[in-house]
Amino acid sequence: MKKIIKNGTVVTASDIYQAEILIEDGKVAQIGTNLEALGAEVIDAKGCYVFPGGVDPHTHFDMPFGGTVTKDDFETGTIGAAFGGTTTVIDFCLTDKGIPLKNAIQTWHEKSGEKAVIDYGFHLMIGEINDDVLAQLPQVINEEGITSFKVFMAYKNVLQADDETLYRTLAFAKEHGALVMVHAENGDVIDYLTKKALADGNTDPIYHALTRPQELEGEATGRAAKLTGLANSQLYVVHVTCADAVEQIAEARKKGFNVWGETCPQYLVLDQSYLEKPNFEGAKYVWSPPLREKWNQDVLWNALKNGELQTLGSDQCSFDFKGQKELGRGDFSKIPNGGPIVEDRLSILFSEGVKKGRISLNQFVELTSTRAAKLFGLFPKKGTIAVGADADIVIFDPNVERVISAESHHLAVDYNAFEGMKVIGEPVSVMVRGEFVVRDKQLVAKPGTGQFLKRAKYNTPVIQSESLPIN
Amino acid sequence: MKKIIKNGTVVTASDIYQAEILIEDGKVAQIGTNLEALGAEVIDAKGCYVFPGGVDPHTHFDMPFGGTVTKDDFETGTIGAAFGGTTTVIDFCLTDKGIPLKNAIQTWHEKSGEKAVIDYGFHLMIGEINDDVLAQLPQVINEEGITSFKVFMAYKNVLQADDETLYRTLAFAKEHGALVMVHAENGDVIDYLTKKALADGNTDPIYHALTRPQELEGEATGRAAKLTGLANSQLYVVHVTCADAVEQIAEARKKGFNVWGETCPQYLVLDQSYLEKPNFEGAKYVWSPPLREKWNQDVLWNALKNGELQTLGSDQCSFDFKGQKELGRGDFSKIPNGGPIVEDRLSILFSEGVKKGRISLNQFVELTSTRAAKLFGLFPKKGTIAVGADADIVIFDPNVERVISAESHHLAVDYNAFEGMKVIGEPVSVMVRGEFVVRDKQLVAKPGTGQFLKRAKYNTPVIQSESLPIN
Amino acid sequence: MKKIIKNGTVVTASDIYQAEILIEDGKVAQIGTNLEALGAEVIDAKGCYVFPGGVDPHTHFDMPFGGTVTKDDFETGTIGAAFGGTTTVIDFCLTDKGIPLKNAIQTWHEKSGEKAVIDYGFHLMIGEINDDVLAQLPQVINEEGITSFKVFMAYKNVLQADDETLYRTLAFAKEHGALVMVHAENGDVIDYLTKKALADGNTDPIYHALTRPQELEGEATGRAAKLTGLANSQLYVVHVTCADAVEQIAEARKKGFNVWGETCPQYLVLDQSYLEKPNFEGAKYVWSPPLREKWNQDVLWNALKNGELQTLGSDQCSFDFKGQKELGRGDFSKIPNGGPIVEDRLSILFSEGVKKGRISLNQFVELTSTRAAKLFGLFPKKGTIAVGADADIVIFDPNVERVISAESHHLAVDYNAFEGMKVIGEPVSVMVRGEFVVRDKQLVAKPGTGQFLKRAKYNTPVIQSESLPIN
Amino acid sequence: MKKIIKNGTVVTASDIYQAEILIEDGKVAQIGTNLEALGAEVIDAKGCYVFPGGVDPHTHFDMPFGGTVTKDDFETGTIGAAFGGTTTVIDFCLTDKGIPLKNAIQTWHEKSGEKAVIDYGFHLMIGEINDDVLAQLPQVINEEGITSFKVFMAYKNVLQADDETLYRTLAFAKEHGALVMVHAENGDVIDYLTKKALADGNTDPIYHALTRPQELEGEATGRAAKLTGLANSQLYVVHVTCADAVEQIAEARKKGFNVWGETCPQYLVLDQSYLEKPNFEGAKYVWSPPLREKWNQDVLWNALKNGELQTLGSDQCSFDFKGQKELGRGDFSKIPNGGPIVEDRLSILFSEGVKKGRISLNQFVELTSTRAAKLFGLFPKKGTIAVGADADIVIFDPNVERVISAESHHLAVDYNAFEGMKVIGEPVSVMVRGEFVVRDKQLVAKPGTGQFLKRAKYNTPVIQSESLPIN
Repeated sequence: MKKIIKNGTVVTASDIYQAEILIEDGKVAQIGTNLEALGAEVIDAKGCYVFPGGVDPHTHFDMPFGGTVTKDDFETGTIGAAFGGTTTVIDFCLTDKGIPLKNAIQTWHEKSGEKAVIDYGFHLMIGEINDDVLAQLPQVINEEGITSFKVFMAYKNVLQADDETLYRTLAFAKEHGALVMVHAENGDVIDYLTKKALADGNTDPIYHALTRPQELEGEATGRAAKLTGLANSQLYVVHVTCADAVEQIAEARKKGFNVWGETCPQYLVLDQSYLEKPNFEGAKYVWSPPLREKWNQDVLWNALKNGELQTLGSDQCSFDFKGQKELGRGDFSKIPNGGPIVEDRLSILFSEGVKKGRISLNQFVELTSTRAAKLFGLFPKKGTIAVGADADIVIFDPNVERVISAESHHLAVDYNAFEGMKVIGEPVSVMVRGEFVVRDKQLVAKPGTGQFLKRAKYNTPVIQSESLPIN
Repeated sequence: MKKIIKNGTVVTASDIYQAEILIEDGKVAQIGTNLEALGAEVIDAKGCYVFPGGVDPHTHFDMPFGGTVTKDDFETGTIGAAFGGTTTVIDFCLTDKGIPLKNAIQTWHEKSGEKAVIDYGFHLMIGEINDDVLAQLPQVINEEGITSFKVFMAYKNVLQADDETLYRTLAFAKEHGALVMVHAENGDVIDYLTKKALADGNTDPIYHALTRPQELEGEATGRAAKLTGLANSQLYVVHVTCADAVEQIAEARKKGFNVWGETCPQYLVLDQSYLEKPNFEGAKYVWSPPLREKWNQDVLWNALKNGELQTLGSDQCSFDFKGQKELGRGDFSKIPNGGPIVEDRLSILFSEGVKKGRISLNQFVELTSTRAAKLFGLFPKKGTIAVGADADIVIFDPNVERVISAESHHLAVDYNAFEGMKVIGEPVSVMVRGEFVVRDKQLVAKPGTGQFLKRAKYNTPVIQSESLPIN
Repeated sequence: MKKIIKNGTVVTASDIYQAEILIEDGKVAQIGTNLEALGAEVIDAKGCYVFPGGVDPHTHFDMPFGGTVTKDDFETGTIGAAFGGTTTVIDFCLTDKGIPLKNAIQTWHEKSGEKAVIDYGFHLMIGEINDDVLAQLPQVINEEGITSFKVFMAYKNVLQADDETLYRTLAFAKEHGALVMVHAENGDVIDYLTKKALADGNTDPIYHALTRPQELEGEATGRAAKLTGLANSQLYVVHVTCADAVEQIAEARKKGFNVWGETCPQYLVLDQSYLEKPNFEGAKYVWSPPLREKWNQDVLWNALKNGELQTLGSDQCSFDFKGQKELGRGDFSKIPNGGPIVEDRLSILFSEGVKKGRISLNQFVELTSTRAAKLFGLFPKKGTIAVGADADIVIFDPNVERVISAESHHLAVDYNAFEGMKVIGEPVSVMVRGEFVVRDKQLVAKPGTGQFLKRAKYNTPVIQSESLPIN
Repeated sequence: MKKIIKNGTVVTASDIYQAEILIEDGKVAQIGTNLEALGAEVIDAKGCYVFPGGVDPHTHFDMPFGGTVTKDDFETGTIGAAFGGTTTVIDFCLTDKGIPLKNAIQTWHEKSGEKAVIDYGFHLMIGEINDDVLAQLPQVINEEGITSFKVFMAYKNVLQADDETLYRTLAFAKEHGALVMVHAENGDVIDYLTKKALADGNTDPIYHALTRPQELEGEATGRAAKLTGLANSQLYVVHVTCADAVEQIAEARKKGFNVWGETCPQYLVLDQSYLEKPNFEGAKYVWSPPLREKWNQDVLWNALKNGELQTLGSDQCSFDFKGQKELGRGDFSKIPNGGPIVEDRLSILFSEGVKKGRISLNQFVELTSTRAAKLFGLFPKKGTIAVGADADIVIFDPNVERVISAESHHLAVDYNAFEGMKVIGEPVSVMVRGEFVVRDKQLVAKPGTGQFLKRAKYNTPVIQSESLPIN
């Protein structure tokens, strides 16, 4: 069925204009004024921005971690995402050494297939590189449509890969057109500092932060960036939190290396002092890398403004405070890492970024949607409002004020890291491929309507457009 | 009359897609597929890109310099621009100390009004700041629509302003919403080196370059950037040529200063050795700042790629070799500075940048059109293809090969700085406000059809979109 | 008469050892143990360090400034210096445009000749460069023994020189073996900010600091350093106060430029808040450049530690609070700039630097004596304890505690900028050329016993030793 | 027996003067003129410099490596050193995991005790850190007098330690007063690149360099420096070869970290092209890290000049070309790493550094002797000429020219890496503790006269002098 969105102000990564949008067959068919279309339903976006649906390149739904599993799965997780204006997520498919990669991918399809209400893709974790793995990877890229690989430089003896694995993944990615993602922290030293803290009887949540100092994130970020330069490959640094890491990314880009950086809402508005909340509440704020001293926030905002960082992911990875975060009482190292972010990602960036004059509306769209779509092979199907693109659209009221709270959020998890924070701006209605998922702030989609996205290969973003056909 | 452009691939600063464009009343009215409109003329753009018309923020037409006047005026100059895909220029209105600013502006209106075939605006040169000048400037901004001011740090005793003037211009601009542009070279030291070279009998064109070393551009760029940071104002550094200057701009941006940088085609593809051409031909390549050693080209390309530089201007300023450049035979300091660039700006960036994989198609549009339109208060009327924008459109054949030559260019000047250079890609047809200026490579517009553009105030670009109305 | 210093610990810029020193004919004749010499007076330095006498390369004695004259002249000034352990000063000889340089030098000889109790040399201020000045300078170097030139980038319309003058001075110095010193602040902008502050009614001493922000020191420092690099010359930046300036010096040295930096005790231990003292007492702390925000102190200490700054001068320039500093009541721009520092230079560096572990004893000697002697053509006659060197020696008790106060200092000025500060370590006895100037904390020398020092040409310090003769 | 050295020019790290030196009981007893001493032998140093004996902190004598043993042992090695003006070496004592450290130390004493003709100390290699090792280390420091530990970041599966080991060694060193040394190359990636090169049939010596690119040295250097900053410890980076590594050290020092850097003669005068010499001769130039592209030499020289690097070691590690280097024919990874440098270290720095004006004579002494003595707990016994210091003295003729050659060198190894290089300046006579080892270019000492040196703990060099007693 056709739809026409009227009276809104359309915003893309470069444009802003007032126009109507005609949606047909799930795609943007026309953009103009005074559009009329036989049988089209008219949606009034008066007073609202019309944004391309958010692309969140960093979620962990239904993920096992430390003996438990994230509270939000692909159903509650994508519902929360949709309410927040995100219409595509790319989730991390974990692998185990020695097990065929297709098994892991199959597992992730099973987790998501009947649950998601928005579209989704997968990144593949690389834990080791050997002839067997190398033999499987081309198929992962070409047939599974998984064109980005995640390497962990932390979580020793669990997820951590060594530098040879990182380098070989980079070299392979260069050759085969994939993008390598890193969790950049020096896991060896963190492992030691953690053991030492516990041995010294320092078990509270704050020691999670104190045993993962920002120097270790800066170090690992610089290491990954330098290996990328050596391999002439491409790198995406997830969840950048601090000045030390921003400095390394900026330095690498200055040298011409293809290095991209993502930060997350929590690092822009929360800080290390949250881990000191009493009654073990600090555990709610345990992420890796950890929240940093507050002065780093200015560095991150400036990096978003001037392009040293290019995307905003959520690193959604939620665990209930009750029963899950509490596993770490008496031992901070057993607190499951992560928190619920996917739902509030756009609101926070809009309210703290656009409304406070730190970034422009165009940058807001670039950071929440377009750049991730381009980097991860989803563009121009996703990531913009343009003729021919999927009609993934957010109707966003820029004036409404609300208070973030676990009581009102749509995720399953029992707390919200931004509890009590006032934000201005909220999605009213959200469409995926022309169908409402959320309409007038009510869920209208059913689980399983989200589709898996086979993604295109990474093309050096500077030339990616060139590869599109000219008829 | 309505027009429909069909079969082309539309490219903006962030998008690329295949669609038809309906033009009505000089504006983009609809973008879609299978558009039909009563009485619309259909233009076939098969095999072509459809770009927003180029915005060249840096031209000098009909400008007096060193006892002569640039060969190309607003007629031949804008015709050349149009053939090259540029639909808007912003020219520099020179002022004289003690003379009312409105006189200078009137003079520039007289130069342009009956001649231009594309739209145009003016920057205003600031040679001094005093109470009298300060009293006139608000009117220049608010009534004349001239919202950018040029300060020269070079050309001692002619155009050069001192640091107090620069600082006060920055402070005024901050308060009143203007953008300050600088020609950044240390004029004091250049003046001395020039006199010394001549006194030593070093009169050939190459000494133009040798007496303006890149250290002096880097120094002045850093000085202007630091004063901008101190004034918390905004700065646009014209014609950046070298590593020393890029380094200063990058450093300023890293500190959060609002500093923008422009480079020009000549610095990307020509180098200092051209000034050593025999038979005084080196004079054809006399620009200020001068062409640099070739290794700087990689630095400039990387700066365009990673965003350390944001625009490509032409610094069009043409003088005939015969009779004009020749004024400097026996004394390089009398060679009129500048060259003919406006016509080949897009071709060179497309051929050397996009086709060689150094930048993306989106970056091409950003650099040649969108960013300048945003910075100089012309967006979204100019600088993009979006509903409601002026239909300033370039139909660009990306596959045609041609050789740049004075024999075939459309400027009046008697030589071309890129003579003999092979480029791929060329505008086929060019519209301004929906009317063809160039059609199938033939001029169809008449002088005087270009319109003067009153420009909006500078808004900190990071928040500029925010100021647009939401209905 | 011969003297033997016994039982002390001798410290030089690289060594530390226990030995006796035999002094004969004003020079160090022997260093050893169990020295005996016919008729030698034995001085016991038990419990003390034996340092080479301090070389203070930056004093202003008997200097006219803003309609008054510094309170301390060559008599009281050098007496204060001697009590503080300084045995050589280099003072600035001011010049006037159009007046023969030898006149200025003669005036300075008249100021000093019959008054000084320690040895002294002159730097020459360069206010303008023209053929007339250039004709006089070789004689200044070769006959007058004045081998360093001072250029002011601030004090507009008074002392300030333009960039051409600075560059030509650098070029001349390169050719003739002189060292160029700069006062690095952007005088043009300071002049404007000062006028503006006064026009706005902001007349208190704190506005002295607020109208000379550190960005303007950083800017001018970078400018001077870049011009030095271009001229392949040598530069000495006096009184470095802040992070912005240190950064520029470090960057220049990294590029291989011959740039040296001096800081002063006041910038290491005082800060901008002192200018806000009530009852106009802030005027006591008016230096140019001004005291900075406290965080800059760590930057300066680290720069001393790792060699980014190389000397500690005093910038002694004292004015009474009563009657002199008070000239600026109601107009901070009329407060004479400067303060009394020469006497406490060594004590402060020893107490705050060596005792607090920020620098080593060897660095203490290097910073207070040796490096300045080397840079300014006095080494090895001055600046060390070695056989053949002048017996300029300080016997320094490292354990005595005292409180700095105007009541006990030996300068004529009526206040002390470090009033109330506790320091550890104090000179007990001080010799110049083997004769006591201060003995057991009592003055024993008479005015006029200090000698004028004709200084050797600057040799690039990296090769200076090479020029010494091998017999 | 007493000795007097006459007529020479004495040079230390800060001084240069003409004097006589009286030596008694193996120590410097007096420095002066017209010294007379009963029974003293007079040595004429006319026309010569008198330097403190060189301290080479980086030798590998009698060291097993890759199935063979270095050709030069403590006898031939120290004889070569002595001829070159080095009077102290610090050799690396290798350890094996699980074997008591004292066993390794005992082995090294056995290698050296009866052979050395100059004094020597040991560094201890740390391959792993665990409770057992930690329990042994205090004794190593306090009883064995071994106060510096070496950690290898390269040589995977052989010598390489992981980051936890490096960090813990740094933390231990901080607490116990030791200095940590690193071989900084990323061994993981080198291991992969090596295997890949061999698998691709790239077996020639040049592939040794190509599989150890400078990016991997820069990476590891930055990693070690950042961990040092985090641990607030002290680090000495051995054999720095390239711009990437210098940049990391400079950055760390700018942040106030206690990071020191050593380079070696081979990196200053040889370059990567030597590895391409025909007939497998490239194998003679196989060091790790490898020789670099020639442009890095300027970076290293500037780093020595401005203090970014502080010492010159030799990394002496010699293998015969015949029979040893040849082990790597057909497989570059089997070429024993290293070369003969210990003998020509001073000559090369003097000839290429001092004579060419790149460094001063004082810097020459600082780099070859004084700084290493200070860093490694040997000062002031070693590293200077001062009363009370060991009379380790080099009489150096600065004018003699010679050609370096294996035919004339005194090492046992069958080639010389600098074969055919002309140098100016050569030691004539060399004393250790007042006894000639080399006299008039003839060996006069017997094996076993060298003494083992128990070294003092590391004191932060900035405060090291402070810890010396004041009587």
